[in-house]
Amino acid sequence: MTASNFEHPVRVYWEDTDAGGVVFFANYLKFFERARTEWLRSLGFSQERMRVDEEAAFVVSETRVRYLRPARLDDLLTITVRIAAMARVSITIEQQAWRGDELLAEGSIRIACVDISRFAPRRIPDGITQVISQNPNPLKP
Amino acid sequence: MTASNFEHPVRVYWEDTDAGGVVFFANYLKFFERARTEWLRSLGFSQERMRVDEEAAFVVSETRVRYLRPARLDDLLTITVRIAAMARVSITIEQQAWRGDELLAEGSIRIACVDISRFAPRRIPDGITQVISQNPNPLKP
Amino acid sequence: MTASNFEHPVRVYWEDTDAGGVVFFANYLKFFERARTEWLRSLGFSQERMRVDEEAAFVVSETRVRYLRPARLDDLLTITVRIAAMARVSITIEQQAWRGDELLAEGSIRIACVDISRFAPRRIPDGITQVISQNPNPLKP
Amino acid sequence: MTASNFEHPVRVYWEDTDAGGVVFFANYLKFFERARTEWLRSLGFSQERMRVDEEAAFVVSETRVRYLRPARLDDLLTITVRIAAMARVSITIEQQAWRGDELLAEGSIRIACVDISRFAPRRIPDGITQVISQNPNPLKP
Repeated sequence: MTASNFEHPVRVYWEDTDAGGVVFFANYLKFFERARTEWLRSLGFSQERMRVDEEAAFVVSETRVRYLRPARLDDLLTITVRIAAMARVSITIEQQAWRGDELLAEGSIRIACVDISRFAPRRIPDGITQVISQNPNPLKP
Repeated sequence: MTASNFEHPVRVYWEDTDAGGVVFFANYLKFFERARTEWLRSLGFSQERMRVDEEAAFVVSETRVRYLRPARLDDLLTITVRIAAMARVSITIEQQAWRGDELLAEGSIRIACVDISRFAPRRIPDGITQVISQNPNPLKP
Repeated sequence: MTASNFEHPVRVYWEDTDAGGVVFFANYLKFFERARTEWLRSLGFSQERMRVDEEAAFVVSETRVRYLRPARLDDLLTITVRIAAMARVSITIEQQAWRGDELLAEGSIRIACVDISRFAPRRIPDGITQVISQNPNPLKP
Repeated sequence: MTASNFEHPVRVYWEDTDAGGVVFFANYLKFFERARTEWLRSLGFSQERMRVDEEAAFVVSETRVRYLRPARLDDLLTITVRIAAMARVSITIEQQAWRGDELLAEGSIRIACVDISRFAPRRIPDGITQVISQNPNPLKP
């Protein structure tokens, strides 16, 4: 974890596990999404306000995840967020799940901005683009 | 299972289980909801059409569930639906989860009809009330 | 919320919502479970250690929930935990979900201690019984 | 959909949707997993028996998914399974989600066979390797 990453803690509960005794693999996408939401919130953006006021939403258009080691009930994970690329209508974000200094899973998530009523791509709201471009994170990948 | 019950099969997948090796208790509410949706569909009603056309939806206002025996990965369950009571704005439904002749869970679910924009109670659409009252199920509880 | 309740914050994410624009009803059982786990942790108990060391687990044997008002994306909820009754093999817990001073959902959850291999009821470990009986909460319901 | 694909139907329920009015992206991984489980079952394999008898399980080691069009409540999807590559300890499977003739999502899922107690890679049971290699699907990619 480099200093410029946004980090969000996630505790593993019963709901997250499966009969293998470990976190169900699809749930890392939920953990990653929570961290992205908190990262947007830390920049001053509410997705609910964006949904209601602008009828816009970020939707996930592509995900790649590698599952390296299992997480278990009660584990406290740290989920990281790092911007890998930013375009007019989409952002590519690299994310990792750590338990202490063990890397458990890592992935690349592309989110695209859409008009909610038609699910058609639209330009990311200027406010978000400006704040992200002022944030030092994308400058030091 | 009495003959008048509506029945819906549910297979248990990894996503449904938890680290105890059994179905996570909250997921029976999902299984029950799937069966209620299929029961409404069997009567000719689409909840998506109701949502889009009438801006109405059934929301769950109360649930009571008793968990008797655990279900496990790969089990094939039968979920039953039986109307226990019907009022102007709500319906109370009794549901059970069976594995063969073993009763695993049973509950009582009250669903209320609401106007989606305000989440305020509204009369159940006449078409649904009529169809349900013509259905023999509520006559033989 | 009375002073003696244990409280746990829960943020609403996309994963928690449904096409009605609100939290999917079954997910309150997840929120309640997270709060119970944190309450047990606050008393010094790890369910994963209990599972591995004693092959024991608390399983949910009965749930009753009333859903009063909808929660939405980005809402920050407070989940409360209050012991209503304690027996040799089970504990009944009353839980509520609040958004500020609005009560959104409330329920009663009975958890029973079981031997994991057979899912047969067993006495709650003495350590837990002692700690809970020393905790002032059950004395001031 | 080519004739050699295994297909599994999936209905979209409330539990699968999010506040955007569409299927929550992470849930396609659940749909894909259900189809893989049914494909293994169609070949004569029960994962629960594999878990209990051999203490072995297939775990997902890598997922790549592209989300093309949203699915909505009540949609009936067809999930396909096609073996892309097979090695001693892992299988790579290509999967798609269709609504009629519209492709909604597609992905590549790598599953690895592990010893459950240590989560260490182990050779895929011979029976499974033999049945899959006799199945015409991998011969006509």
